[in-house]
Amino acid sequence: MPELRKDPVTGRWVIIAVERTKRPDDFRVVPTPPRGPSSCPFCEGSETSTPPEIAALREPGSAPNGPGWRARVIPNKFPSLMIEGELDKRGEGIYDRMNGVGAHEVIIETPRHDLGLADLPADRIREVLWLYRERLLDLRKDHRLIYGLLFKNAGVQAGASLEHTHSQLIMTPIVPFRVAQEIQGAKLFFDYRGRCIFCDIIQQEIGSGDRLVINEKNFIAFEPYAARFPFETWILPKRHLSHYEATDDSLLGELAFVLKTTLKKIEVSVSNPPYNYLVHTSPLNVGPIEHYHWHFEIIPRITRVAGFEWGTGFYINPVPPENAARYLRDAVV
Amino acid sequence: MPELRKDPVTGRWVIIAVERTKRPDDFRVVPTPPRGPSSCPFCEGSETSTPPEIAALREPGSAPNGPGWRARVIPNKFPSLMIEGELDKRGEGIYDRMNGVGAHEVIIETPRHDLGLADLPADRIREVLWLYRERLLDLRKDHRLIYGLLFKNAGVQAGASLEHTHSQLIMTPIVPFRVAQEIQGAKLFFDYRGRCIFCDIIQQEIGSGDRLVINEKNFIAFEPYAARFPFETWILPKRHLSHYEATDDSLLGELAFVLKTTLKKIEVSVSNPPYNYLVHTSPLNVGPIEHYHWHFEIIPRITRVAGFEWGTGFYINPVPPENAARYLRDAVV
Repeated sequence: MPELRKDPVTGRWVIIAVERTKRPDDFRVVPTPPRGPSSCPFCEGSETSTPPEIAALREPGSAPNGPGWRARVIPNKFPSLMIEGELDKRGEGIYDRMNGVGAHEVIIETPRHDLGLADLPADRIREVLWLYRERLLDLRKDHRLIYGLLFKNAGVQAGASLEHTHSQLIMTPIVPFRVAQEIQGAKLFFDYRGRCIFCDIIQQEIGSGDRLVINEKNFIAFEPYAARFPFETWILPKRHLSHYEATDDSLLGELAFVLKTTLKKIEVSVSNPPYNYLVHTSPLNVGPIEHYHWHFEIIPRITRVAGFEWGTGFYINPVPPENAARYLRDAVV
Repeated sequence: MPELRKDPVTGRWVIIAVERTKRPDDFRVVPTPPRGPSSCPFCEGSETSTPPEIAALREPGSAPNGPGWRARVIPNKFPSLMIEGELDKRGEGIYDRMNGVGAHEVIIETPRHDLGLADLPADRIREVLWLYRERLLDLRKDHRLIYGLLFKNAGVQAGASLEHTHSQLIMTPIVPFRVAQEIQGAKLFFDYRGRCIFCDIIQQEIGSGDRLVINEKNFIAFEPYAARFPFETWILPKRHLSHYEATDDSLLGELAFVLKTTLKKIEVSVSNPPYNYLVHTSPLNVGPIEHYHWHFEIIPRITRVAGFEWGTGFYINPVPPENAARYLRDAVV
């Protein structure tokens, strides 16, 4: 069973895979995933190479764990957290730990090996976004799970261990550190001004236009003012909404269009970089809140991040977000 | 002039190099620094290839900016922050910015190209640690500079842009985010219990011994309980001391021995990995404080960190720190 441990100074939780007993040298070589569809467990026809599916969008008449699907959710074969067991929160002197209870699922976005997420028709992307929501709605019934973290690693340099396009959902019994910080900062702002800080940011970004990439009826994409990374891009719903899983069906089509267009613009502007995205949303165990606003953070992996940067939280970004926004606005997709 | 910008939600500051106007594609290729001593600006005899030296440890009779030195401090040729000018703190709507005033220096640890820091005799390492201190003492006279961040990138994968072993010092007009979080967490602990949390950690680590690597008279090296990375190792002075620059001469020799031994043990255990280290110390503009304790954090770059991890602050560490400590204790150096 993995273990969650809390740094006593900062309060940050870390997942420690305590049961593995590899030799140190096993960690020296970062394996490069095989390329191409042969032996890919995520391709159509290889359904039995994965754990049995949890959910899928299927053609009428097709059977679970066989071909005929458009998108498919499976448990991660090598989960970071385990669904079984109790949290068993305990102290160890001044330290705090709990069992690594949670869930780790994989969303296979298409049966095709040769396409990235942004290559799919917007309507297929809408279905993936719909699946994200349905998994959160299903898993929040388990009251041990406090947070659902949706993310995507696209490309080996972005941490993808399989080439076939997929996203992941990690359900945790605590709120991840950086999300907790965002919520805390947003709460301070709200307590002082009575407004959601993200709603204020949206208003200022639309007003100035300098960092805007896409401005649609219900969603905007822009480069954040204090972007940590070149071409870091956020997507937010314009109307205040604290929880991703509360996003109405009627909005998912436009969100799919904005996400696809943003990813394509980044592809064109920066020669198809590896990237990550994360969905920051509110904890599952609180109702709608006025001070936090769900959003996508897209991070192209262009510059090499030195340990300095993760060690200090002090990022050096060589591309002003205003310049990045101009390139992205001008990119024809 | 670079610009410091504050993320309005979390309060994190970012350095934005606003004056550069590269094309996006310039960021696609991460240049690999040339290998070997030919044309290395940090080698003995190439002193005129660098900006003029700020400080150096020299043989009697040798002239500045010529051969005959053991360690040398120079301004970074491509500084992240600039020493000239005023901070000019300003708002931009809800955002906050200031000029990127600061300093960025390079400490060349040896004239020899073929050695890493840990290969140097302990007495030479002691001199490097002494230089760290002297630079902080000198730069803190500039009251615009609030924090001095000493760090080392060793190896290309750890972000080193030159092969020749060196450390860096970035002086900032703000306290870096993660250091600020540590200080804040330590302050909360102190306010509640009246003790330094790091002193408590030292006591518990010596008591249990499970994560101890080196236990000398004045310093210990251990794997932190909630280590984010495999073989992450911290070095702390046993007696409470808030500021690195207040470390007495009489302690620097033992610190050099512990740092050298720790780095060598990591080299032997994990096949000479790239690594970073950071010195976390108290802000320069406060006197000795009871709640914060300076320390080294050494981070071998073994696993690939996915954007997920920097995007969320939620780290997954596949090597329990107790196992890593056992390997390091057993490593013969």
